[in-house]
Amino acid sequence: MTELLPLSPIPLYSQLKELLRTRILDGTYPPLSRMPSEAELGKAYAVSRITVRQALGDLQKEGLIFKIHGKGTFVAKPKAFQNVSTLQGLAESMGQRGYEVINRLRSFRFVPADAQVAARLQVAEGDTVAQIKRARLVNRELVSLEVTYLPEALGRRLEKADLVTRDIFLILENDCAQPLGHADLAIDAILADAELAAALEVEEGSPVMRIERLTHTADGQPLDYEHLYYRGDAFQYRLRIDRHKGPRA
Amino acid sequence: MTELLPLSPIPLYSQLKELLRTRILDGTYPPLSRMPSEAELGKAYAVSRITVRQALGDLQKEGLIFKIHGKGTFVAKPKAFQNVSTLQGLAESMGQRGYEVINRLRSFRFVPADAQVAARLQVAEGDTVAQIKRARLVNRELVSLEVTYLPEALGRRLEKADLVTRDIFLILENDCAQPLGHADLAIDAILADAELAAALEVEEGSPVMRIERLTHTADGQPLDYEHLYYRGDAFQYRLRIDRHKGPRA
Repeated sequence: MTELLPLSPIPLYSQLKELLRTRILDGTYPPLSRMPSEAELGKAYAVSRITVRQALGDLQKEGLIFKIHGKGTFVAKPKAFQNVSTLQGLAESMGQRGYEVINRLRSFRFVPADAQVAARLQVAEGDTVAQIKRARLVNRELVSLEVTYLPEALGRRLEKADLVTRDIFLILENDCAQPLGHADLAIDAILADAELAAALEVEEGSPVMRIERLTHTADGQPLDYEHLYYRGDAFQYRLRIDRHKGPRA
Repeated sequence: MTELLPLSPIPLYSQLKELLRTRILDGTYPPLSRMPSEAELGKAYAVSRITVRQALGDLQKEGLIFKIHGKGTFVAKPKAFQNVSTLQGLAESMGQRGYEVINRLRSFRFVPADAQVAARLQVAEGDTVAQIKRARLVNRELVSLEVTYLPEALGRRLEKADLVTRDIFLILENDCAQPLGHADLAIDAILADAELAAALEVEEGSPVMRIERLTHTADGQPLDYEHLYYRGDAFQYRLRIDRHKGPRA
């Protein structure tokens, strides 16, 4: 289906959106190329500028295209993704696939645990915990903000660690002799507030994939509690799930 | 920390946001209760209305509160969540925990496969496939829109199935004798466009957790390709990930 069907029950903007999505995914419009203008698209598909604008607006909400003020509309690059079928830090996981991961340390503080942090790390509310905020870059592009909470004693050991190039998981395992076991994750979608927008260099109200992750030691004690915020337009989680539990094939 | 600290380097709105978040999570402000007004909060914490508005705006972006025009600001209910450590349909997974899952069948059509659907289901582009759109309700509240693609022959068998109360996974296994193996998932965050906003009964631009899921038969053939769109304000995925592959504890 390469032509729009004016008599179809499917609205024209929706047909145009599907057509443009297909052409983006099949490489007709390659990553980072400039899309034809609204006027050009309207002429090419014999639809109104309002129809074109609605189709482009939807593709932008989906993260397939982005606008640069005064420059036009561009095709987004395919999202980077992390395979999370096993528990790995971002650098460990992406590094295996040839990506460079660098972190910007935004803050390293010792703070009183709020009710949520205290419950997760099994310390008393108000106990001192380490709070580490890092923005993470994959191939020099910002993908996430990670806010990590650790018990105070462990935090003191991390103060001198290389938090710019290393995963906290590997520091915990290799420098602190704390072998890791499992992590419990909760994943949802939120909108960027002012702090997230600044840290991720996106506009307020942009889509953000949020992960709450509580990582345990090999013997099941909670050790490392994190809030991970990923740019919706730049990053994806991938995993394989089996229908039946048990050893994987 | 129950008082705001005007001399802290942390902005007042950010302190107020953390304080209100803690009081929502600890039940001081219970689910579905009305929050104090902006004026009341400003007076209680001795901050300006702009500060209150910014704190409330951030909590709304995070999905912890919502506004009803002319009625005020209310505390959101805790998000429903699905445990996705093993591959289950929504009704199968939620039903085990006592939730009622009902589906609204929005459309059941046979359409030509676009490039993406064809590649995933290993059919030729333009081949006829079944497309099923269902909105899903957990305890009578809308949580997701699911768009399912199946090979034509399988789709014909599903035309007479009960798609209102049953999971497609169980229909495939029990009625079509197609035991399922594994699924590959990709998870990201997008904004609701007009179609999603209408289906999920949210405003355009609301956060949506999107899952692309390709489910395979027990012998590894791709069978069922889906796009799942979850309301960011109402739903969460949870899973446990192990540090090392192998049989689970």
